[in-house]
Amino acid sequence: MKNVLIIGAGRSATTLIKYLLDHSRQYGWLIMVADAEPSLAESKVNKHPNGLAVWLDASKPNDRKDLIRRADLVISLLPPHLHVAVAIDCLQLRKHFMTTSYLIPELQELHDTAKKSGLTFIAEIGFDPGLDHISVMPLIRKLQSRGNTIEGLRSYSGALIAPESDDNPWHYKFTWNPQNVINAGKGISQYLVDNQNKYIRYDWLFRRTRKVEVPSIGMLEMYLNRDALVYRRHYGLKKLPNILRGTLRYPGFCAAWDAIIRLGLTDDNYPIMESYQMPYKKLIEAFLEDSKGRLKDRVARYLGEDPSSPVMKKLSWLGLFGNKKIKLKHATPAAILKDLLLEKFALNPNDQDLVVLQHECDYISEGKKRTLVSSLVHKGSVKEGTAMSKAVGLPIGIIAKLVINGTFSDPGVHLPVHADLYGPVLQELAESGLEFIESEKEYSEFVL
Amino acid sequence: MKNVLIIGAGRSATTLIKYLLDHSRQYGWLIMVADAEPSLAESKVNKHPNGLAVWLDASKPNDRKDLIRRADLVISLLPPHLHVAVAIDCLQLRKHFMTTSYLIPELQELHDTAKKSGLTFIAEIGFDPGLDHISVMPLIRKLQSRGNTIEGLRSYSGALIAPESDDNPWHYKFTWNPQNVINAGKGISQYLVDNQNKYIRYDWLFRRTRKVEVPSIGMLEMYLNRDALVYRRHYGLKKLPNILRGTLRYPGFCAAWDAIIRLGLTDDNYPIMESYQMPYKKLIEAFLEDSKGRLKDRVARYLGEDPSSPVMKKLSWLGLFGNKKIKLKHATPAAILKDLLLEKFALNPNDQDLVVLQHECDYISEGKKRTLVSSLVHKGSVKEGTAMSKAVGLPIGIIAKLVINGTFSDPGVHLPVHADLYGPVLQELAESGLEFIESEKEYSEFVL
Repeated sequence: MKNVLIIGAGRSATTLIKYLLDHSRQYGWLIMVADAEPSLAESKVNKHPNGLAVWLDASKPNDRKDLIRRADLVISLLPPHLHVAVAIDCLQLRKHFMTTSYLIPELQELHDTAKKSGLTFIAEIGFDPGLDHISVMPLIRKLQSRGNTIEGLRSYSGALIAPESDDNPWHYKFTWNPQNVINAGKGISQYLVDNQNKYIRYDWLFRRTRKVEVPSIGMLEMYLNRDALVYRRHYGLKKLPNILRGTLRYPGFCAAWDAIIRLGLTDDNYPIMESYQMPYKKLIEAFLEDSKGRLKDRVARYLGEDPSSPVMKKLSWLGLFGNKKIKLKHATPAAILKDLLLEKFALNPNDQDLVVLQHECDYISEGKKRTLVSSLVHKGSVKEGTAMSKAVGLPIGIIAKLVINGTFSDPGVHLPVHADLYGPVLQELAESGLEFIESEKEYSEFVL
Repeated sequence: MKNVLIIGAGRSATTLIKYLLDHSRQYGWLIMVADAEPSLAESKVNKHPNGLAVWLDASKPNDRKDLIRRADLVISLLPPHLHVAVAIDCLQLRKHFMTTSYLIPELQELHDTAKKSGLTFIAEIGFDPGLDHISVMPLIRKLQSRGNTIEGLRSYSGALIAPESDDNPWHYKFTWNPQNVINAGKGISQYLVDNQNKYIRYDWLFRRTRKVEVPSIGMLEMYLNRDALVYRRHYGLKKLPNILRGTLRYPGFCAAWDAIIRLGLTDDNYPIMESYQMPYKKLIEAFLEDSKGRLKDRVARYLGEDPSSPVMKKLSWLGLFGNKKIKLKHATPAAILKDLLLEKFALNPNDQDLVVLQHECDYISEGKKRTLVSSLVHKGSVKEGTAMSKAVGLPIGIIAKLVINGTFSDPGVHLPVHADLYGPVLQELAESGLEFIESEKEYSEFVL
């Protein structure tokens, strides 16, 4: 019997746990689910005979190692700063290791030791990052095998609400981690154009957007997603002169989020004194210049908007100009915003969601520039399981299956870019309805 | 014999050490100067018979305590995060304690214990913060003693170059810590107007500026200086409805620094790959939108400036659009900027500097609003000692003298706002040429 240890039983774990339990009898696995909140782990295991819910405070090294010792493969779904400790435990105790989080330098440094020990360590194995890597590799290999030169790569993803459930002026609801939405763009935002590095500062990020056409969906809007440059090496395209990653939203979202940033509402480096029971309008007032007149008109002037513009309508709908009271004590603007949006952007029980992932790969074929497009558009529902939970959880589950059964082995620290990995993963995803559609189009210059 | 321990022999310590050594024979003091760099401490003590240079790594508790044990008063000029450890040592070993740094909550928490032990702990005793508190208190007391109601307080300070030595288009040189200039405004920037808290976001800070007239100097320009609200309590004006603190520059500086921020050059959260030997113009290019044309014209368009505007002239003078190469490896934009400015904003051996400190206190007298202004303008020189080193070092030295000689005692953790302290300090400063001039003017509404 092979043992899999999943550390962290939160949202990302649901589909993964179900997938592994569903396959556990067939392959003879024991699935141990560890969490600091035992009831959470228990509810996900749901008394499955091949499942075991365990209490674990992952910050305690001895408790953590006791559990890891009993596993053959460890999947860490912990907050990012705790992955490295788990990975180091896995090296010491000689266990395979997987995480959905970004491949940070501290993890990359373990490569040589993992390789020597014959251990497979894989990072970035969810939806984004994860499925983006898994799905771009066959495109790259196909173009290269035809002798084409790849000139540029743009990869976009979005966790959206389905058009049927789009019932607010933002055309947006939280279908995944709200904290990531509040913090979007606060780190580095970098792309490469004609071998020139390009950075976009936070206060320009939601202004320098671009339209992106997605088959069967239509026009979406994208803003830059972190640092694309690091992936040139992982994709085997070290000299690629153009690369960019973007996040997709329905048109209009970015301009309104830009207004949220300009109003200071995403700031998280100081608390607002006496925020409890303060009306939202008093918080907004705090970021405006001193002057008289109706708050909404002054906000519009500050933002350079017409008082009845789509951006102003979105802000009004959030209740920012009314007497609605803040519920948090001594909270940062970002915490206050998150609390408000958790209510306004909540999914309803009947809602459907949508995930979109699209690669646009510019290449030269017989002296002519063309673009190969590969798109995934998948719908889910709160009732049957969201598209997003499937798009995150299935890649982890399938990769875990391949590693635990010994079907796939690649000692060292890697992203999921190996042909022996992406082939089987994409095939099984297609069987579950997550299928990429390819199309060709004329090349047109991409300017951001 | 009384022993004074000064921890940190850097720039802030020079005038202080000289002042204490100059008075050491008269009062029978031993002045111990401790630094991680022994030659630095030695050069400042300069073999004075009442001085002792000591090597100290302040992060080592035992070494630190061995020295503190031998002192009666400890003056910490360490980086901010190390003050609290020294203050806690002083509590344990029953020594008086002083620091130039901000009174952070971790220090404030020691108040009750210090009070019970009869120990005087004073923070914020340099120029700003420090002399601003010392000089505002007699104004407040005077107005209150006349029965006037204080309605508003604005305190400004600036470390400037003297007009005689102003030979660059920025009208600015570094006369104190360059890092503070690079990081200015990155934390909270808050003021209070008619009891409404007002925050200014970083990317508006150098745009929402205001002209300030300083007697004998003329018009200067101010931008907001951190959080003014905390001082209402310290000044005994808990209900004051208007308070603001500002930093002074010559006109034109703020608009150009705003451009520096917008070009991404103060960002310090990621390193630039391959920055070594990269031309500055390639770094600037990285923050611009994709497009063709002359770099300088595109920067002007991005900033909304005319290519020959004063802001663009200041940027050109820094060499940002030329072939000059970056000297640092894998450095953040902020580190690259600091390296450049250290060269461009360096003081010459013949330069003179200027410190300015001004309070504007709005009050109601017999139903009429008026403003009492108190200003310090003091000039110094590189050769004879800068005005800034005097304005920082003398207040510390004088306060140290009063505490060590037992002339002043106020057990607990305080700012320098006690009448028994500010009276003697201001008198001795005036004798050294640092004198405040008071004037009255008509009230006019302050709008930021």
